[in-house]
Amino acid sequence: MNYEKLIRDIPDFPKKGIVFKDITPVLKDHSAFKKVVEEMAEPFKDSGIDYVVGMESRGFIFGVPVSQILGAGFVPVRKPGKLPAKTASESYELEYGSDTLEIHEDAIEEGKKVLIVDDLLATGGTCEATIRLVEKIGGKVEGTSFFIELGFINGREKLKGYKVNSLINY
Amino acid sequence: MNYEKLIRDIPDFPKKGIVFKDITPVLKDHSAFKKVVEEMAEPFKDSGIDYVVGMESRGFIFGVPVSQILGAGFVPVRKPGKLPAKTASESYELEYGSDTLEIHEDAIEEGKKVLIVDDLLATGGTCEATIRLVEKIGGKVEGTSFFIELGFINGREKLKGYKVNSLINY
Repeated sequence: MNYEKLIRDIPDFPKKGIVFKDITPVLKDHSAFKKVVEEMAEPFKDSGIDYVVGMESRGFIFGVPVSQILGAGFVPVRKPGKLPAKTASESYELEYGSDTLEIHEDAIEEGKKVLIVDDLLATGGTCEATIRLVEKIGGKVEGTSFFIELGFINGREKLKGYKVNSLINY
Repeated sequence: MNYEKLIRDIPDFPKKGIVFKDITPVLKDHSAFKKVVEEMAEPFKDSGIDYVVGMESRGFIFGVPVSQILGAGFVPVRKPGKLPAKTASESYELEYGSDTLEIHEDAIEEGKKVLIVDDLLATGGTCEATIRLVEKIGGKVEGTSFFIELGFINGREKLKGYKVNSLINY
């Protein structure tokens, strides 16, 4: 099963000049999707991961099955105002303006080992903010795992010092 | 593992007078979460489900693992403007105003069997709109499965004629 062939290019989405990598055909193919999350989890099988953190909302799609493969709990990072209990928050820069992410303050106990999972590594801004969130509440980030990496944007630069796993690099 | 004990009440969220059922403590407990998704999938094990449809974004958290248990593909239903290819859309009424959901037009082939999964059955409005979306593009809805049902709101009424599974009924 070559999952790479299932990713389709959607031109001019979300805006003119951008070619969007649509991963939904991978999700609807049970065997391909299973292989993807297994490969996303593989490098962390012996890392003793306690929690997988996934970012709303495509990070949920990959983070949940990776957490189940690793026998870890799942912790969601969400947009502001979505998590009901007490949260910690971090803002990060976008091309125009900024965005904020939140995590429940009591989601991760001191020193617990965390793997951060998302569908895409582009600028690395979302992931960097998530690393700061996890560390702020006492977690230890063991690494990050992405389905797709847009290598030409060099988001890895922002994640220096952390293990970065990605399955496909464009 | 009694997962019911892990659900916590958050008073006055998202607004005064509402007691929100916070399921994040279930997600972070690997064994409890695993048991929940197994029980959500169980009644549909022999239904030949081709696709599990989950609604953004907590439906992703439960829909993806249920799809993997059933050996089915996963199809996301999202808020407007998020899905990159050609979509079908359905609007539904809220307490004040309305909301719209989208699905990729080519996500489900004619006659394929679909299970709809979400975290919560409240008014049933989101689920009813999702049923209409799935049927509009040719899918056959075999049933729905929820972690929590707020029975006093009677959302089941809107889903008459469809099999409804829920693990906890408040």
